[in-house]
Amino acid sequence: MTHLSNVSLSLLPALAGFRLSSAACGIKTGNREDLLLVEMTPAATVAGVFTRNRIHAAPVALCRQRLSNGQARALLVNSGNANAVTGPQGMHNALTVSQAAASLLQIPEEHIFVASTGVIGVPLPIERILHALPDLHASLQPGNWENGVKAIMTTDTFPKLSFRIFELEGRQITLIGMAKGAGMIRPDMATMLAFLFTDAAVTPAVLQTLLERAVETSFNSITVDGDQSTNDTALLFASQQAQNKLLDHPDDPKAAPFAQALNAVCLDLAHAIVRDGEGATKFVAVTVSGAITEIEAKQAALAVANSPLVKTALAGSDPNWGRILAAVGASGVTLDPARVSLWLGEVPVLKQGQCADSYKEEQGAAVMAAQEIAIRLDLDMGTAVRTVWTCDLTHDYISINADYRS
Amino acid sequence: MTHLSNVSLSLLPALAGFRLSSAACGIKTGNREDLLLVEMTPAATVAGVFTRNRIHAAPVALCRQRLSNGQARALLVNSGNANAVTGPQGMHNALTVSQAAASLLQIPEEHIFVASTGVIGVPLPIERILHALPDLHASLQPGNWENGVKAIMTTDTFPKLSFRIFELEGRQITLIGMAKGAGMIRPDMATMLAFLFTDAAVTPAVLQTLLERAVETSFNSITVDGDQSTNDTALLFASQQAQNKLLDHPDDPKAAPFAQALNAVCLDLAHAIVRDGEGATKFVAVTVSGAITEIEAKQAALAVANSPLVKTALAGSDPNWGRILAAVGASGVTLDPARVSLWLGEVPVLKQGQCADSYKEEQGAAVMAAQEIAIRLDLDMGTAVRTVWTCDLTHDYISINADYRS
Repeated sequence: MTHLSNVSLSLLPALAGFRLSSAACGIKTGNREDLLLVEMTPAATVAGVFTRNRIHAAPVALCRQRLSNGQARALLVNSGNANAVTGPQGMHNALTVSQAAASLLQIPEEHIFVASTGVIGVPLPIERILHALPDLHASLQPGNWENGVKAIMTTDTFPKLSFRIFELEGRQITLIGMAKGAGMIRPDMATMLAFLFTDAAVTPAVLQTLLERAVETSFNSITVDGDQSTNDTALLFASQQAQNKLLDHPDDPKAAPFAQALNAVCLDLAHAIVRDGEGATKFVAVTVSGAITEIEAKQAALAVANSPLVKTALAGSDPNWGRILAAVGASGVTLDPARVSLWLGEVPVLKQGQCADSYKEEQGAAVMAAQEIAIRLDLDMGTAVRTVWTCDLTHDYISINADYRS
Repeated sequence: MTHLSNVSLSLLPALAGFRLSSAACGIKTGNREDLLLVEMTPAATVAGVFTRNRIHAAPVALCRQRLSNGQARALLVNSGNANAVTGPQGMHNALTVSQAAASLLQIPEEHIFVASTGVIGVPLPIERILHALPDLHASLQPGNWENGVKAIMTTDTFPKLSFRIFELEGRQITLIGMAKGAGMIRPDMATMLAFLFTDAAVTPAVLQTLLERAVETSFNSITVDGDQSTNDTALLFASQQAQNKLLDHPDDPKAAPFAQALNAVCLDLAHAIVRDGEGATKFVAVTVSGAITEIEAKQAALAVANSPLVKTALAGSDPNWGRILAAVGASGVTLDPARVSLWLGEVPVLKQGQCADSYKEEQGAAVMAAQEIAIRLDLDMGTAVRTVWTCDLTHDYISINADYRS
């Protein structure tokens, strides 16, 4: 599936307080970039959100520990190896590369954040990373975002970058985000990473709150196949260089432009991950309204978005609304079958539990044949609304995940 | 996928207290059998277990109401139409065919149980059923199990029948079960039905308890794609004709042979449904041991069995154990990654969170290439064990559900 919109990379600005470099150190085959280093100004703050998988990678554990400081000086990411399910050796390896980077950068080790993505269960080839670090350090420069994002790609079919430039009380602020994910063509890839960088002055606590909110309605509201990775990580770094008045409360109206930009960049990246979903040919928004709580609205929408029968109907352009109803009914949310209404695009299909008189299958088929599809359900039980995004389940998903060997 | 074992239909006995007939009334195309009537002796008792889907079919609602009596005189099943998501008309139609059958059989209407399977959202063509009922009634006879099961098939590729003959305190007892399901080749089929018949004398309460126990470890422990139908129904009828001493307590040791036979027949039928799973080429048992509770053991096993990434690895004969670990880690059960062990077949892959020294990928590949595969996880947290059964996710699943239109 081609992505319908992407930033023009030439527009990406340098960002005060961040320097980047990337290299091909030989973890990935074919001399592809697989190592990213981002150095940050001493004032930089950080927030992070991680996989809820009980089996998580060593770098996830290390980042979680270090997040309590709220301070960051560097980010080191490798692709091609997830450093997951590697036992105590996994943490030892994560610490070793972190120590080496700290020594080169002459910064406290606990201010380094590390992330890994790639094959599960294979020890991280740290000697390759250690060998590459001095050159990586020597070539740090501002604004190298395009190469940076390439170094975190595994089998993504396109780089995922987004940014917003906005104002906080007259000061220009920039927020840049990069992500990799969902293109798990190697069948054992540990998947989603997202890194966000801003020059705004924001306290760690505010960064954390706003990041958690943004992630909930973006990265945590997308699904390709319902599987959850051992390495999912989103980190937000703020260099504090923009000279805006420090944002120290998440619900301060003055923080709203920052929160909006953060939500927008996260949503851009999340949508890009769905569009790059394995074998995806369609981009699908599932909205559930009229739920009793937002949690139930999301639960119902995810049940539809994760149903293999719904996803194959989407692939086949089949307006098979019985499957959508069955998925919602099985989702466990509070509903009354006689109050449920359903629209495919703008076409009313079901009204208060009964097939709409006006509905003709050709109308539904026309909606389902499009590349972008909106499925909307109203439960008529409350006022909560949530949207999740997904893609279809196609032969290519099976081919990518079953036919090719790692 | 061909089924590896099935009963020899010629061995199926008549069963005291039950008479059957079937017909092709025109709900399904091609003059295929689509209507089953089973008449029972006045003493017959009944138990039932139904879909937990909040959006359930009218016949499910009707059976639930009537189950409180514990008495049954007839079962009327149609295939080709699920009578689901059909609004108030759905219940009206279910009542109309039930009334007509009661009138012909001269029995109380509330002792008739009805079930439907097939297309969702299309009104039940009751005139065809009403037209066929007199002939159906006139041709009732004992022992016509083979034709009976054909009338409840939709796109099953083989009939699913199983039976056990056993003794209760010297009296010979027979238990026969039939099922349809999982072969949802029409993309909007409402799926699993199972009907069990015995001549044993058993109270309704004991039937209900033993049926619920048997269903939990059989029909509720299989998954083809994790989707849940609007029509799933299992009914157990006992004609009380075998002259055994009435079973009036589920945990009476004298009831054990009955419970064992019921579990065995339900498991046979459940396995047959998985073997007939859409596009399935492999039959897979996932066992989780060492869980804190049976609920968590099943939850972890189902997370593995429902993971699209695990199911495509099974299709591709890929010993991709990282996906199994990621699915268990995401399942939400209590575990410590450093205590998890994994076996593919008899091959130890992971021991206490680390790749087994002896493990070679060729060993795992050999296990995964077989038609029958056992995946075993030990969490080392408690003593609870559960097994669930599933099949692989193949191109044919996509073809069946996406490429063909209903």
